[in-house]
Amino acid sequence: MKKLAEETVFLLKEKGLTFATAESCTGGLISATITQISGVSAIFYGGMVTYNNEIKNKILGVKKETLEEYSAVSQETAEEMAYNICEKMNVKIGVAVTGNAGPNPSENKPVGMVYVSVYSKNFKKTVELSKQLQGNESRDEIRKVAVKTALLLLQETVKYY
Amino acid sequence: MKKLAEETVFLLKEKGLTFATAESCTGGLISATITQISGVSAIFYGGMVTYNNEIKNKILGVKKETLEEYSAVSQETAEEMAYNICEKMNVKIGVAVTGNAGPNPSENKPVGMVYVSVYSKNFKKTVELSKQLQGNESRDEIRKVAVKTALLLLQETVKYY
Repeated sequence: MKKLAEETVFLLKEKGLTFATAESCTGGLISATITQISGVSAIFYGGMVTYNNEIKNKILGVKKETLEEYSAVSQETAEEMAYNICEKMNVKIGVAVTGNAGPNPSENKPVGMVYVSVYSKNFKKTVELSKQLQGNESRDEIRKVAVKTALLLLQETVKYY
Repeated sequence: MKKLAEETVFLLKEKGLTFATAESCTGGLISATITQISGVSAIFYGGMVTYNNEIKNKILGVKKETLEEYSAVSQETAEEMAYNICEKMNVKIGVAVTGNAGPNPSENKPVGMVYVSVYSKNFKKTVELSKQLQGNESRDEIRKVAVKTALLLLQETVKYY
């Protein structure tokens, strides 16, 4: 994963694309992976780990209506997280993850239902992970797939700049 | 580290001690380590990764004067980060890290100068890592020592509740 992070940082740096993260079930693993690379502070401003609904609302500004109507584990929440972190940290790209990494179902959402979303002016996209999972992955494995997906979405975004 | 995180979460849960993280050079590695443990959402509300001075000031509320007078790599900044995250996320314990994990000196601060700080009503403490380092550790190793120290400070805090 470090190599993928290195490539991603290289590509973002080449275009001067600043970015920030908003994480729920990955709990900071995206930003921890990215900050293994020294010198990333030129483009990575920071991130938020919003591990419950109140924090998602109060700190990151995800609307209560979104959380109530669609729940925290939804495309809508992921997209609002990505957009909001972008605005709050004044960066060009926001990447966000929310979902259920297991081992138990939560809020009636099955294990592996995880949304990874990227927001930028030129490109936005959300990926739902469960389609690419077998269904027998551990919490650690699901979180790793989410981090990898986030890094690949960042790389995809670079193409639009 | 997962075992230490597990023990820490167990101890915090026993006393219902909610907590949040504020990270600079560890970049989310403390929260990522903690959220490996399922069910931690009952006590871990979230965290902030504040990777540059502007974000430390604007998002986490570290005073400009503190950053200017003492720099981001200082006991004063670490303590303000720990206190502020506690207030912002309305939790009982805040734990923060700021420092230089290398590989190059930054802001005239040597590699390995890292401050880990815990704040709670009953107990506060700040540890400077370089005393327990040999001086030849890699960026990854320094970050791991910081995470371990943060977890041990959380465990120490539990004794005061």
